[in-house]
Amino acid sequence: MTGHWPKVRPGSAEDPVRCAVLISGSGSGMVALVKHQQHDPNCGHATVVVISNRPDAAGLRKAEDMGVATQCLDHRDHAGPSARAMHEAAVVEALVHHRVELVVLSGYMRLLSPTFLETWGGPVVNIHPSLLPAFPGAHAHRDVLAAGVSVTGCTVHVVDEGMDTGHILDQVPVPVFPDDDETSLSDRVKVEEHRLYPAVIDRLVADR
Amino acid sequence: MTGHWPKVRPGSAEDPVRCAVLISGSGSGMVALVKHQQHDPNCGHATVVVISNRPDAAGLRKAEDMGVATQCLDHRDHAGPSARAMHEAAVVEALVHHRVELVVLSGYMRLLSPTFLETWGGPVVNIHPSLLPAFPGAHAHRDVLAAGVSVTGCTVHVVDEGMDTGHILDQVPVPVFPDDDETSLSDRVKVEEHRLYPAVIDRLVADR
Repeated sequence: MTGHWPKVRPGSAEDPVRCAVLISGSGSGMVALVKHQQHDPNCGHATVVVISNRPDAAGLRKAEDMGVATQCLDHRDHAGPSARAMHEAAVVEALVHHRVELVVLSGYMRLLSPTFLETWGGPVVNIHPSLLPAFPGAHAHRDVLAAGVSVTGCTVHVVDEGMDTGHILDQVPVPVFPDDDETSLSDRVKVEEHRLYPAVIDRLVADR
Repeated sequence: MTGHWPKVRPGSAEDPVRCAVLISGSGSGMVALVKHQQHDPNCGHATVVVISNRPDAAGLRKAEDMGVATQCLDHRDHAGPSARAMHEAAVVEALVHHRVELVVLSGYMRLLSPTFLETWGGPVVNIHPSLLPAFPGAHAHRDVLAAGVSVTGCTVHVVDEGMDTGHILDQVPVPVFPDDDETSLSDRVKVEEHRLYPAVIDRLVADR
């Protein structure tokens, strides 16, 4: 299991690994992670900034309410052929400014370019609401229901240049019920997402 | 759940739905199914014949030991361009002879042609050792281990012309451990296969 795990230094409560959580929406996963970090006195990681690419992301307010710094870096502030590069440069600048050591994508709806990953150079993890490699992409629950499977789940993985293709760190299965719609299924999977993501990050910063 | 379920008449202990189990090897799934049928006094299905396409399939002897009729229909008995058709015609003849109502594939390593499915005309189900649509094909466990997933499972599905593509009837997840090899993973999945398949067939013959 160690070979493919991203390089993260061991963290401790006194010297936690500094995380940035990138969101685009409600930030429910971010809230679960920050609560875990704030409530476990031995937690070896801490969220030092929440970054949203959308100014209307409800998660920004929730982060502030929990005492976490926030930054809105609207990708629509940039235009033209280098819009993506300029937006990503602003994200890297924020990561450096906050001395971030681990980037945690949590409902962040933008694909990060190879240039970003190379420029930033540090570890990036993501959570996806399916049992990858099954059902990648932005509409996992819809695709799961269309396929008629009776088991889905969630996956924490390392982020590479692909869409939901990086090395899998851990997964949890979740049943699909015959009367499920996207909302009921998403709600059930989120319960497991909110447990799995903090647990995997705990392991990432554990002294191995 | 009813729309895509294959049409099988309700079965009872007095008048069980007549199953043929098709195997190619050890027949461990067939043994689990027959034991379930013989030990549950209310079981609404019974195996009336076990058919193997290989004379050396160990499952043939096990079926005989449990008092079930067996038939070996070696696909290598036929040659030339119509070899598949001739072999499948022999299988259909055996199904008709035994008045079979449900075909249960259990480690049967041959793809059934559209002609077979049309000629036979009755329901065919299969069990596959992965969470379909992930990891179809003959080397599911190997592919699962290569992909680095931490959850796999098994799937019972209706058989259509594709390879492991028919409508999913039920699935069960099984964890993958970091030190798994194909044997240890296969053993763990088989435990669930041997529970799932009889349970799904119970539901198929239940009066809905």
